[in-house]
Amino acid sequence: MDVEVVNFKDKFEKLDGAHEYRVVAQMNYYYFKIVKAKRTFIWHHHPETDESFVVIEGNLKIDLKNKTLNLQKGDMVVIPRGVEHRPRCNAECHLLLIEPAQTLNTGNKVTDETDTDIEWI
Amino acid sequence: MDVEVVNFKDKFEKLDGAHEYRVVAQMNYYYFKIVKAKRTFIWHHHPETDESFVVIEGNLKIDLKNKTLNLQKGDMVVIPRGVEHRPRCNAECHLLLIEPAQTLNTGNKVTDETDTDIEWI
Repeated sequence: MDVEVVNFKDKFEKLDGAHEYRVVAQMNYYYFKIVKAKRTFIWHHHPETDESFVVIEGNLKIDLKNKTLNLQKGDMVVIPRGVEHRPRCNAECHLLLIEPAQTLNTGNKVTDETDTDIEWI
Repeated sequence: MDVEVVNFKDKFEKLDGAHEYRVVAQMNYYYFKIVKAKRTFIWHHHPETDESFVVIEGNLKIDLKNKTLNLQKGDMVVIPRGVEHRPRCNAECHLLLIEPAQTLNTGNKVTDETDTDIEWI
């Protein structure tokens, strides 16, 4: 089995488009996924799992029903299962998501933004 | 339920000693653990799980049986279940480990370096 270091700068340089999720690593049944984001995402929740966000570059706000989280480069947060949230960023930010492999980006909703075809990079 | 952003600089500033593991976040049954390391650790493996390393500050080498991984600040790697590895760093490095909550730092071995009393920070 080959074991390779993941360098996020290299991975993000290979990733052209915004809002395209790519898998960079797997730990048991969890994926480490990267995405370049520049949008106000939809309100959603994940009925079956917690979800982890790590900001690799830029800033990310995550609206919750009772407050807004402000994540700077290098910060992380775990959004608990079932908690409604809306990630948003006006300027491009580079995100790492850690969650079970089968987790849908749009959680409990299926919209034009739902991405079910996630490739490795 | 309170949802808080984790800032790693703040967390590491609160952590005095080397080789003391602290939990900073939980995702389902997985812990995000931080540790300041400056040592050559023991050879070990985790029979039951993959294990993720992220370098927050400094550099980390992880010896495998067939090669040595070199992780710089910001890099990550997943060591697969059952793969023998030996993390080491001559200068202090700040690490984030992601693994199931019950994972022993020394894997399949119990030594003076085994840490079973892991607190939140």
